[in-house]
Parts: sequence; C-alpha cells; structure tokens
Amino acid sequence: MNEELKVTFEKITEYFKARQIAPLRELLRETEEADIAIYMEEELSEKERLQFFRLLPKELASDVFVEFESDTQETLIKLFTDKELKEVIQDMFLDDTVDIIDEMPANVVKRILKNSSPEDRKLINELLEYPDDSAGSLMTPEFVSLSAKMTVQEAFDKIRVQGVNKETIYTCYVTNVKKQLIGVVTVKDLLLAPSKEIIENIMETSFVSIETLCDKEEVAHMFSKYGYLAFPVLDKEGCIVGIITVDDAVEVIQEEATEDIEKMAAISMGSDKPYLKTSTFKLWLSRIPWLMLLMISATFTGIIMNNYESVLSSVLVACVPMLMGTSGNAGGQSSVTVIRSMSLKELDGHDFLKVIWKEIRVGVYCALCLGVICFAKLMLLDNFVFGYDYTLITSLVVSISLSLAVIMAKLVGAILPFLAKGLKLDPAVVASPFITTIVDALSLMLYCGIAIALL
Amino acid sequence: MNEELKVTFEKITEYFKARQIAPLRELLRETEEADIAIYMEEELSEKERLQFFRLLPKELASDVFVEFESDTQETLIKLFTDKELKEVIQDMFLDDTVDIIDEMPANVVKRILKNSSPEDRKLINELLEYPDDSAGSLMTPEFVSLSAKMTVQEAFDKIRVQGVNKETIYTCYVTNVKKQLIGVVTVKDLLLAPSKEIIENIMETSFVSIETLCDKEEVAHMFSKYGYLAFPVLDKEGCIVGIITVDDAVEVIQEEATEDIEKMAAISMGSDKPYLKTSTFKLWLSRIPWLMLLMISATFTGIIMNNYESVLSSVLVACVPMLMGTSGNAGGQSSVTVIRSMSLKELDGHDFLKVIWKEIRVGVYCALCLGVICFAKLMLLDNFVFGYDYTLITSLVVSISLSLAVIMAKLVGAILPFLAKGLKLDPAVVASPFITTIVDALSLMLYCGIAIALL
Repeated sequence: MNEELKVTFEKITEYFKARQIAPLRELLRETEEADIAIYMEEELSEKERLQFFRLLPKELASDVFVEFESDTQETLIKLFTDKELKEVIQDMFLDDTVDIIDEMPANVVKRILKNSSPEDRKLINELLEYPDDSAGSLMTPEFVSLSAKMTVQEAFDKIRVQGVNKETIYTCYVTNVKKQLIGVVTVKDLLLAPSKEIIENIMETSFVSIETLCDKEEVAHMFSKYGYLAFPVLDKEGCIVGIITVDDAVEVIQEEATEDIEKMAAISMGSDKPYLKTSTFKLWLSRIPWLMLLMISATFTGIIMNNYESVLSSVLVACVPMLMGTSGNAGGQSSVTVIRSMSLKELDGHDFLKVIWKEIRVGVYCALCLGVICFAKLMLLDNFVFGYDYTLITSLVVSISLSLAVIMAKLVGAILPFLAKGLKLDPAVVASPFITTIVDALSLMLYCGIAIALL
Repeated sequence: MNEELKVTFEKITEYFKARQIAPLRELLRETEEADIAIYMEEELSEKERLQFFRLLPKELASDVFVEFESDTQETLIKLFTDKELKEVIQDMFLDDTVDIIDEMPANVVKRILKNSSPEDRKLINELLEYPDDSAGSLMTPEFVSLSAKMTVQEAFDKIRVQGVNKETIYTCYVTNVKKQLIGVVTVKDLLLAPSKEIIENIMETSFVSIETLCDKEEVAHMFSKYGYLAFPVLDKEGCIVGIITVDDAVEVIQEEATEDIEKMAAISMGSDKPYLKTSTFKLWLSRIPWLMLLMISATFTGIIMNNYESVLSSVLVACVPMLMGTSGNAGGQSSVTVIRSMSLKELDGHDFLKVIWKEIRVGVYCALCLGVICFAKLMLLDNFVFGYDYTLITSLVVSISLSLAVIMAKLVGAILPFLAKGLKLDPAVVASPFITTIVDALSLMLYCGIAIALL
C-alpha cells in the first residue's frame, strides 16, 4: 500500500471513531471504491463494518459492496434489512449481481432474488442459466441500444436518458425490430458527426461479436487481440442479449493466467479466492490429489531402480538425482513454453511438427552443453576435489545419459501438451510435475540401458 | 481460427490474386485490422506483403502496421519509400511508434525519426528516455486536455476538433496553466450535464494517477483494481505528461503473466516474441543458464548419496526418486501459490507469519495422507505384488521421511519467495526448479538421518 493511501485510511479511522459523519463522507467521496472496500475488510471488525457501511454516501454503497470478497458480502447481506438489501441491489449492474449470487448459499440467494425488482429477477435468472465459464455468465444486459433511423441528436437524447444506468455508453448497439444487432456506433463517431446525420450512415456494420456460449478464455483472447472496450454478445438468432466490457475481461485474463499457473504446478484450485481467505482444508484438497497421483506413479522409478540394482554401482546411483532433476527441468521448460503459447493462441495443432523440430534443435544444443560440463565436473571436481572414483567410462555413461535424457525430456515436454489438446484436455495439466514424473522414469531406463551397454 | 475468418481470408486471397482492387478494399474495410495483419503474415510472401500493403485503404494502413510482429515491421520499413514511411508514422499513436522503435535496429530507428515531424520527433525522444518497464514507456501524450473555466459546450467543441487523433476521448484531463492536472471529466459526465455548465463544477478532483517511473506491473495491477479505461501519468511536479489506456494494460497483464510463468519454469526469456518466431539460439540461451546452474547445484545430492552409501540399502535407494519427486512437487505447489498471490498483490511481506502457519497446517495434512498411503503401498503392493523386501522398519523409514520431507518442502516453498522479495529479487525466480533443487538435497539428508536413527 502506498503512503498516500495509508494517510487516507488513518484519517478515515479518525473520523469514524469520533463519529464525525460529514467530514467522513466528504473524504469517502474522494476515495476510490476499491480502496474503501479494502479499508473496511482490513481495518474494521464485522460489527463495525455494518455501522460503517450504513454511513457510506448512498451513491457509493453499491460500488463499494461489489468490491468486497464474497465472504464479506455474505455476512453483510445477512445483517442487512430488506430495505438496505433492496437499495444495494438496485444500484448494482446485473452482471455484478449474478457474480455475487454465484458465490452465495441458497438462502442468501433467495433473499437477494426476493429483494430484486420483478424485471431484474427475470434477467438475473436468465443470466444464471449460462454455464459458469461462458460469455453469457460474464455479460450484462445493460447496454445502450439505438435504432438505425435515429439522428445523431436523437441518439444523444436517448443516451442522456438511459445512459446513467448502463455499464458503458461509449459503444452503442443498433438493432432492428427483431432485436438483431445490425450495427455498432461509438460515442466518438457520434460526437464527430453532424447532429442531423442518420445513425445508419455512420454506424459500423462489420463488427466482431461473441456468442453466449463462447468460452471465457476465448473472450479474454478477443479483448487482447482486438483492443475493444466492449463486445456485443449475440444469441443464435443474432439478437443482442448483452455486452461484455473490458474491465470484466481484465479480471478474466488474470484469473485464466492464475488457473494456468496453478495447473502447471499440479494444483486444482477451482476457486479464485485470495490465498489467505482460502481455508486450509480447501488448499489441502486442491493439492493432495496430484501429489498422491504423482507419488504413486513414481512407483515405476522404484521398480526400475530395484531391477537394475546390480548394474548401477554406487557412484552411478549417486548421479541419479542430478540426472532426473536436470531432465525434469529441461522437460518442464519446454512444456511450459508450449502450454503458455497455446493459451495465448500463438500455437495450435497445425504447428506440431514445427515445434518438435525446434525443440529437437534446442534440446541438442542444451544436451551438448550440459553433457560436456557434466563430464568435466565429474572428472575434475568430483574426482580431484571430493575424491570419488569416477573413471573415464563411468563419467561417459553419466554424461551421455544426461545428454540423451535432456533431448528426450524436451521432446516429451513438447509432445504432451499437443497430445492433451488432441484429447480435448487442458494442456496446462500436463505441465512440469506430470512431465517430470514421466521423464524421471524414462531417463532412469535410459541411464540403466547405457550403463549396461558401455560397462 | 474460426470458420468465418477462414472464408474471409480465402476471399481476400481470391481478390488479391485477381487484382480486383475495389472489392478487395471493400472487404478489407469490413475486416478487423488485427485479422488483416494475421492474414498478411501467415498467407503472403515477403514480396507480396509489400504489394498488398500498398493496396490497403489509406485509413487502415497504420492500424494494420501496428499489429504486425516486429520482424515483419522491420522488413516492411526497409522496403518502404520515405513517403510511405512518413504516412504510416503520421497516423500512428506515439506510444505505438515508440514500441516499434524499441524493437528496431539503429539504422531503421534513424529512418523512422527522420521521417517523423519535428514535433513528433521531440516527443518520441522524450518517451524513449523512460526505462523499459516504466509507465513512461507505456504512455502516449495524445490525450484531450480541457481547462476548468470552459463550458460543457466548449469542451465538446474542443473534443470534436482534437478528438480524431487522440488515443481516447472518453476521459478528458483538466489542467491549469502550469499543465498540472487538477481534475478529470468523462464524456459520460459531459453528456449528462447541461451544455452551459462549467467544467470546474462537474470534474472529479480526486483521481488516481500514475507516476512516470511507476513499474509496468504496478500499472497493470491498478487497472485490474480500479477498472478504469485510462490513467493519467504525472511527472514529479504533478504535470500530466501522458495517459495509459486499458488496451495497453491488457497487453501488459498478459506479458507479466507470461514472464512469471517462464521464470517459474526457470526460463529467462527477456523477449515477448511468439514461440515460433523466436530463434532456436535465443530459446537455447533463455534455458541453458538455469539448467546449468541447477545441474551443478545437484552436486550436493551426489555428495550426500556418496557419503551415506553404506546407510542406504538397495531397497532404500530405490525409493529416492519417489521421495525427491514428491517433496519437489509439494514444495513447488506452495511456492507457486505464494508467488502468484504476491504478483496479484494479495500477499505482501506482512503476511509472512500467516502464510507459514497456513502452509504448516496444509503440509501436515498432506504429509499424513501421503505417509499412510506410501506405507501401505510399500507393505502391500511392493512386497506382495512385486516381491521386494520392504520390512516394517524400512517401510517406516521411507514413510516417515516422506512425511517430514513434504512438510519441510511446503515450508521452504513458502519461505523462499518472501526471502526473494526481501532481497528485492523477483519472487518468481525461486519457483519450482530452484526449490526442487534445494528440497532434493534437504530431503535426502533427512532420509539418511532417519535411516541412521531407525535402522
């Protein structure tokens, strides 16, 4: 937190403790809603939070409420009177209401719906029916719609009347009588056109739209590809049912990246609560399945070591951790690079051969480097400094195995994400820990094989 | 790529090959700039690309050019006449020009600067002086500035005249004679206000701003925290020198996530070129230093294995890969969770003790689970199915070591990112591979210690 914000927080506390309502409200009006929410969550007790919330200037209440973590929202809703709840909901955008409902237990959901206007309730119920990771669940039906025959002046008049309650006014959507989207016009276009101009003449008739069932990740990708402020969401008949604005996309992009990162580390979170708010049990649950699976898969390495026991002299066994660690790292690098490029849509199935060819070359370069250094290390450092007994031939066995294992690891790391994609799995699940487990077993077999061949 | 886009691409090719210029241009006007750039990069040869570029409708040329990868831009610039280059640069926003210049060799930069207007050249040179990862390098000086005494009508008149060439018109910046930022007003506010109202009365005087030297990552964080469309960038005197718009922030968020992911997999890319455009040499260079470092650090595990050779019977040695793999995975999970939470500013230094306490609990739960399963697996599966010889006591040694190693790994995984942060390093560099290397050595020592104690 920066200094300025700290000072603001201290002042807020001062006014609040002294019950100086007028200056408190003045100060709150000058503070960002997101920061007020942080203040209330971090500095106030549950009881104080309700008191404080009741002191908020009316126009801020909903905006602050939206910024809370869902458990804060839940406790507050339970403490609200029906009247308070109604007011908060009324001022919220519908996509935010739906986001909140998604996280609440059934009885709280019931109360929220009971205190919404009948019209809103209908819309909320429609939005709730879209799958969790679809464009439909992200959108809000609160957009400005215009008709093609309006003049620019009439459009401005409509925006002035309706605009206050719309998520964005900067992109307006032109629809025909069937509510089909026929054009898009921005406020910039409107401002630069003469006031008597007909919308039809200035609207953009070629526009990019999103389908209601389009995946969230694809939505995020479209924002970063096209740089729009909002996308229209259409149903199968081409009717506009909502819009998604860039601020929602920013959140999705962060969430998707977090999800990818977690999957790559063998964590299956399935929740976007901040770390400190996640219960120990949930954390455990998100980690243990993979740990268990990977541990049991490691049975293979045990079998290999037990079976080749006679082949691997103690100096060779001592190199096993280094060999497996290095090939695991090498494979992890490749898989992570490929997976991230897939997420960013830089790679798809057609690039398979190009990627393999590239990874083979990178693998060979890495293998040569590491092999030579490993050989030198064994012959010089381990023999002369530590006094172990690595002969020329054992050093060769280790270095050659290492080199081949690195190339093999790079290949496995590049192939598996494509395989996962082909099987319609998320490529991120085959990242480092998974690949390490496979590569561990393969490189051990390679090691034993080469030891048998050369010794 | 979706079907619709494929059809468009085929039509474009058809018109282009048949030299049907008018319908080609018509079609291009209806196509997104980002898609035209993809078409030109993927479907055309270098020579065709220049021909095609010359056929683009004038108003699209710069917008398409900005979307190209930097190597396409470089070859095109080299082929452009001075007149063509001048036209393209003129229509570009200055932050885009600076982005392009950042990636070009010196002689191309010279040509770009030579073909910019003297005024632009001055601004470009100023922007180029900001550090690469600062807000200054992201911003553009092309914003709408208003004065406090204007009426709403006058403001709209100014926007109409200046707006065409501004990166955004939706947020306008109110400055005093010293160019200090004194207020912010959105087009929404302007539209909803009477046309005779004075700007001073409707502008927001409390606003969040960014300093020129603010880190890119912090900028991205502010966009996701506050949900703004643009932030003003101020110098030390409080004068507004530029703005950063949300489309730039979206790119930064993607880049920062990619950077984090790469660092976590021990890759030091330092370039945001797509995978397939990165040369094999560059990929090698980004991966080999860490592989080498981690391989050499694995010397420790070798030393431990060599020294405790007599303690570790062959059945115990066979469990080493499983033990090290599992504790590496467990440590990786913790470190990745903590690092990502730090990136999202959900955690900072003050939360150290809370995190440690949480990880200890999660670690103990995981350890109990894994220990019991490992014990059962050794006694039942390995003894009865595979016919190895794990006695009660050796099975206990393995399971207890595994349990303690998992707890230890979770702790190391949680502590190291904080340590890195304390040392002003990027926490992401201490992720999985790094932690695995440390945890490997520690768990081996633990294993040998427990074996000595119990056998």
